[in-house]
Amino acid sequence: MSEHIVTSYDEELRELARSIAEMGGLVEQQLDDAVNALLSTNSQLAQDVILGDRQINQMHYQIEERAILVIAKRQPMAQDLRETVAAIRISHDLERVGDLGKNIAKRALAIEDQRMNHQLRRGVEHLASLGLRQLKDVLDAYGSRDVQKAISVWRSDDEIDAMYVSLFREMLTYMMEDPRNIGMCTHLLFCAKNIERIGDHATNIAETITYLVTGKQMERAATAPSAG
Amino acid sequence: MSEHIVTSYDEELRELARSIAEMGGLVEQQLDDAVNALLSTNSQLAQDVILGDRQINQMHYQIEERAILVIAKRQPMAQDLRETVAAIRISHDLERVGDLGKNIAKRALAIEDQRMNHQLRRGVEHLASLGLRQLKDVLDAYGSRDVQKAISVWRSDDEIDAMYVSLFREMLTYMMEDPRNIGMCTHLLFCAKNIERIGDHATNIAETITYLVTGKQMERAATAPSAG
Repeated sequence: MSEHIVTSYDEELRELARSIAEMGGLVEQQLDDAVNALLSTNSQLAQDVILGDRQINQMHYQIEERAILVIAKRQPMAQDLRETVAAIRISHDLERVGDLGKNIAKRALAIEDQRMNHQLRRGVEHLASLGLRQLKDVLDAYGSRDVQKAISVWRSDDEIDAMYVSLFREMLTYMMEDPRNIGMCTHLLFCAKNIERIGDHATNIAETITYLVTGKQMERAATAPSAG
Repeated sequence: MSEHIVTSYDEELRELARSIAEMGGLVEQQLDDAVNALLSTNSQLAQDVILGDRQINQMHYQIEERAILVIAKRQPMAQDLRETVAAIRISHDLERVGDLGKNIAKRALAIEDQRMNHQLRRGVEHLASLGLRQLKDVLDAYGSRDVQKAISVWRSDDEIDAMYVSLFREMLTYMMEDPRNIGMCTHLLFCAKNIERIGDHATNIAETITYLVTGKQMERAATAPSAG
């Protein structure tokens, strides 16, 4: 993260937004790598993702710290206050998504010696591409402060949920057909759940963007990450 | 949450700490209820937990909002700034624990018509009692600003992790022995994972308490929730 001297209040806010964009880009890359490590049994890539998570955690703390300093120093009101609060919230969601990526990478290592059924692989790949698209779209919506785009991400979370449920059932079927599939499928089940939760965090970020731009808090109760 | 008029800065900080204690108590109760609903197949209790999660989400937002107002209004330094930052962080962890409880309650409903093996039930019960104890101890440590107690919680997370791994293996065995166990065991696997993650959040809170009292950030990278 660039450590240049901040000269003005506006510049501080822009710097916060830039840090979120930077962190978002890194999290996207980590996730993409984690899924590739899983699908192509690439141990080195999986290990890189696990190590790289540390940097994401550090960025999260730096952003939180900087946002709090801005609040303390500038006592921002209205839109500016929302900018800083949004930075705290979004960095927290991104940090969680980073953790999910790390967990997928760990499971990639756990099952690297097992052959993955072609259809399951396709299912995981498809689910992951949906999750990554949601993350990318919501980060774009943040960059352009585009509420319509954020709402569109928010609405399409159902698609990931439905895809996850269908994949979940398919995996249960494989486990029942042949008990030798149980170990690998269990890890894949958790990977699929992790990917589904990326969608939940993208939804959270979409809500934060809406709050940031409109000042209105969306109702989260119905859509909070299912955390399971 | 009481809405009395805040008269002084100290009072504002005390009120924040009180709100965290109140939220913590509610989250503990929700978790306890969720686990009971799962183990005693009590659908009504499970539904109460699912509905009750909304109140926890609201408390989370209220605490975050109030902490940010304190920062903006009072520009706190050192210990006082850490008090407010700690409130934001802990309320976030508690909100996540609440989500985990809600998810356990949902799974309790999903498998309510299936008979749970006695030994698995005992395993889940034991793991849950460890998780709940960690949460209770860390909330006590927060109440008394007791770093030693926080560090002790932080250290004993390994015990939960080991217990989880052992239960995980036991469940895989049950699935392999009889494919008819797969559906229920899969839900129990996710419940066990959720309980294990409560320990991770207790660990996070222990780190926040250490930061609050000593001003030093503990290294989180090694112990961040595994999120899977």
